[in-house]
Amino acid sequence: MIPKERIAEILGSYEDSISIATVCSHSSLQIFDGARKEGFKTIGIAIGKPPRYYDAFPKAKPDEFFIVDSYPQILEKTSELAEKNAVVIPHGSFVEYLGAQRFLELDLPTFGNRRVLEWESDRDKEREWLTSAGLSMPKEIDNPENIDSPVLVKYHGAKGGRGFFIAKDYEDFKAKADSGEKYSIQEYIVGTRYYMHYFYSPVTDGGYRLSKGCLEFLSIDRRDESNIDGLYRTGSQEEMRKMGIDPTFVVTGNIPLVLRESLLPKAFDIGEKTVEKSLELFGGMIGPFSLEAIVTDDLEFKVFEISARIVAGTNLFISGSPYADLLDEKMSTGRRIAREIRIAKEKNLLMEVLS
Amino acid sequence: MIPKERIAEILGSYEDSISIATVCSHSSLQIFDGARKEGFKTIGIAIGKPPRYYDAFPKAKPDEFFIVDSYPQILEKTSELAEKNAVVIPHGSFVEYLGAQRFLELDLPTFGNRRVLEWESDRDKEREWLTSAGLSMPKEIDNPENIDSPVLVKYHGAKGGRGFFIAKDYEDFKAKADSGEKYSIQEYIVGTRYYMHYFYSPVTDGGYRLSKGCLEFLSIDRRDESNIDGLYRTGSQEEMRKMGIDPTFVVTGNIPLVLRESLLPKAFDIGEKTVEKSLELFGGMIGPFSLEAIVTDDLEFKVFEISARIVAGTNLFISGSPYADLLDEKMSTGRRIAREIRIAKEKNLLMEVLS
Amino acid sequence: MIPKERIAEILGSYEDSISIATVCSHSSLQIFDGARKEGFKTIGIAIGKPPRYYDAFPKAKPDEFFIVDSYPQILEKTSELAEKNAVVIPHGSFVEYLGAQRFLELDLPTFGNRRVLEWESDRDKEREWLTSAGLSMPKEIDNPENIDSPVLVKYHGAKGGRGFFIAKDYEDFKAKADSGEKYSIQEYIVGTRYYMHYFYSPVTDGGYRLSKGCLEFLSIDRRDESNIDGLYRTGSQEEMRKMGIDPTFVVTGNIPLVLRESLLPKAFDIGEKTVEKSLELFGGMIGPFSLEAIVTDDLEFKVFEISARIVAGTNLFISGSPYADLLDEKMSTGRRIAREIRIAKEKNLLMEVLS
Repeated sequence: MIPKERIAEILGSYEDSISIATVCSHSSLQIFDGARKEGFKTIGIAIGKPPRYYDAFPKAKPDEFFIVDSYPQILEKTSELAEKNAVVIPHGSFVEYLGAQRFLELDLPTFGNRRVLEWESDRDKEREWLTSAGLSMPKEIDNPENIDSPVLVKYHGAKGGRGFFIAKDYEDFKAKADSGEKYSIQEYIVGTRYYMHYFYSPVTDGGYRLSKGCLEFLSIDRRDESNIDGLYRTGSQEEMRKMGIDPTFVVTGNIPLVLRESLLPKAFDIGEKTVEKSLELFGGMIGPFSLEAIVTDDLEFKVFEISARIVAGTNLFISGSPYADLLDEKMSTGRRIAREIRIAKEKNLLMEVLS
Repeated sequence: MIPKERIAEILGSYEDSISIATVCSHSSLQIFDGARKEGFKTIGIAIGKPPRYYDAFPKAKPDEFFIVDSYPQILEKTSELAEKNAVVIPHGSFVEYLGAQRFLELDLPTFGNRRVLEWESDRDKEREWLTSAGLSMPKEIDNPENIDSPVLVKYHGAKGGRGFFIAKDYEDFKAKADSGEKYSIQEYIVGTRYYMHYFYSPVTDGGYRLSKGCLEFLSIDRRDESNIDGLYRTGSQEEMRKMGIDPTFVVTGNIPLVLRESLLPKAFDIGEKTVEKSLELFGGMIGPFSLEAIVTDDLEFKVFEISARIVAGTNLFISGSPYADLLDEKMSTGRRIAREIRIAKEKNLLMEVLS
Repeated sequence: MIPKERIAEILGSYEDSISIATVCSHSSLQIFDGARKEGFKTIGIAIGKPPRYYDAFPKAKPDEFFIVDSYPQILEKTSELAEKNAVVIPHGSFVEYLGAQRFLELDLPTFGNRRVLEWESDRDKEREWLTSAGLSMPKEIDNPENIDSPVLVKYHGAKGGRGFFIAKDYEDFKAKADSGEKYSIQEYIVGTRYYMHYFYSPVTDGGYRLSKGCLEFLSIDRRDESNIDGLYRTGSQEEMRKMGIDPTFVVTGNIPLVLRESLLPKAFDIGEKTVEKSLELFGGMIGPFSLEAIVTDDLEFKVFEISARIVAGTNLFISGSPYADLLDEKMSTGRRIAREIRIAKEKNLLMEVLS
């Protein structure tokens, strides 16, 4: 990973001006809209040519497009971006398109702590982080013969919502498993899904205090996944399976939600524990993150995943949310990121939120 | 129930100042946020210590916490609350935690008509109220042998979303029923669920006129219930049942909705009839209430429940809703309550909205 | 269809003043609210007497009600409406209640191009339009014996969400089909449903440019349909069918959504192609339209319908949406229509947006 000293050096060359740059996808509309609202110039990184859809969203259209031939080429052009005083905002597609290893070496100030990638991208380390923080996760099952309740089976090569299946028992597992593939098995928790959008600020005073900085709760969504979230209309997964239509889990959009208010203390508790453990393990996860949990009918959160940066579900809340509105007006997660950079800059603490 | 004269007496001691007090849960964020927007001081009643989650929502953090050891202790401390000029806003958790009987005796001015509890908490009286008002409800079935269409069976001790089951016919009923338990059986209506949030103001001129005051329509949600609203993803309830996973109906959150506009006249009609009948039966249900209905494919409302105070589904609409926005800006149900108190106070009609 | 010259003539008589008129249903609240926000007088056309529900929504209550005995009577009273300088905004209920043929002859300026009706109301012409534009639609199957994957069967008389069924295979088709009825069969696409709300403006400069004018993307909803969207809770469609409860698809409301951002370029592409082809085929579809699509787990849009005017799903977004907010503040589709009329008027291009 690129050393912090190098980032500080680049940042030193920016003098007083910062531009917010990100890849044109995922949650870029709110990132650009929010950055502009906080007074920053914006740069949209795109392949080949400027995407036309920004023309329909003038408030979110970046001030400038930075065109590359391919994502890896971004690495070759970092000095050009540095000349434009770019601070990079990572999002899921940015990291995925560039590749985690390349992202770690990106020779530009990026928002957040890049070291989180090591803990987030490896399922075992992610589990170590969250369970050692005290969060409850679905159990892992090593031997399929031990399946005694519904399980979620995930092939090692699973990607983009495919390569999963739900098995009710060992028989069902055997019937559905592809013997040639490696897989992991975890308990399938039945309940309702909440993707909770937190923001950890190491430089903000007041608020919900952590050992350092504070924790905010900005919004909640539920991922809308094809085909599983449309499959119920056909009446029977089993019959669909016989016709060759298996359940898949490809994210196509997001639906807004609020959480029962009496669950908020627990939601803050798990958010707090996750941040505190991150401070201990790798210097802290900075900025937006999402805990993705099933709420059981015992009203427990079973966390099945963490996303350690802005998630696309926040796209619902570009003008605020039932939670963010109690903090400030018209505060999207994208805007909150820009504000964090602005606050850190004003306090001369930029290196606390960049890496 | 505490006599109205006593409430008027306490209120008399408040002189010109009122504080809005409620228990820190359920819909308290919007109640405090709304009260502050309408110019009131706010008091959060909490057990043991102030809940930390308000620190993350500064606009909704009460001006003061009022700490008790247990909910029943609130009754012993009413004079302290009266010294703070507290007007209590009841919500579902408040009434449940305190207990309906204790709530009736609470020696403090409370928003709304406490007499509604008698009609709301008893299933038979609730049915009497709503059906005599002319609303259509799911039929009750006295003898399980008469089950000839899907039914919802509810054990008498059912609480918090458990103790229900759906039976398709008498055979299914026999297979699922626990012989030791008492139960009630009602027709299971298949359709889409709408939890409609009304507001009845006895002191507002203009608007949708009732025999006295007016009716408002603020928003709609759908309760999100664990595990039933996640169960479809497993493909088969029947197979889950075999694995020991039965459907449960525990509220975990809420999803926003709008209603087909051509159904609004019917929605107002049933709201109006419910209020008019309440005026006749017990002097009227004041303030927010919710009719919870299935809309069938014949576009009829089958009302399965009434909540005679603010419901948690309104938490979605802390900055307004597609309906409330046509009435006024940024009007949550919590704020609407505070405004009602403000209007009543200005008109010297406080005792019309308190009990 | 009424000649454009006649419309221009009526419009000539309006001098400088325009009133926005529509039938009191469907999406009329936002149409009136939006028209007022853009400075227009509003006229609500209603049967028998003014609908009371507007009293609860003062911002959306039309300035004046225009009462008729029946919808066809509107045709006899067009001169009265013309005297009031009425420009008519069509919506789904308006066209349905009046009848498409009568709507074509309505002797009043109406927003949009009435010629679109010919292409939209005939399933074959609709398919010709959309497929020749390059959109992907569910395949049609001429002979039921060729059913080799799930299909949606629609009786020719199907109306209002009834008269459809899903068949898994030919056997299932035979078991469910009513032999006396004519039907059409199309591929049943399993995936998530997005009802995308576009706006085509022939008179706006800038934005997402088309060969003429520009394309906007205002919001997305999902229709909530009774009983199909509640049926999953019963556990089994098959068992419900045995009890005489068949799936139906009657719209009762709408749920808000956003689309995965990486799908926006495709969403614009299909919107653009649809408009460009409409310009070629019949002079263009003006104003709001909706493409209603399944997103498959291959992230492809399978368009199953077009609505060539304001759809009721936009009722969710009366104060803006995650998309419209990036264009302008508090922009509903109803308001966007009024603004289009205002812009066209200011540019002396009214006949470009009326017919």
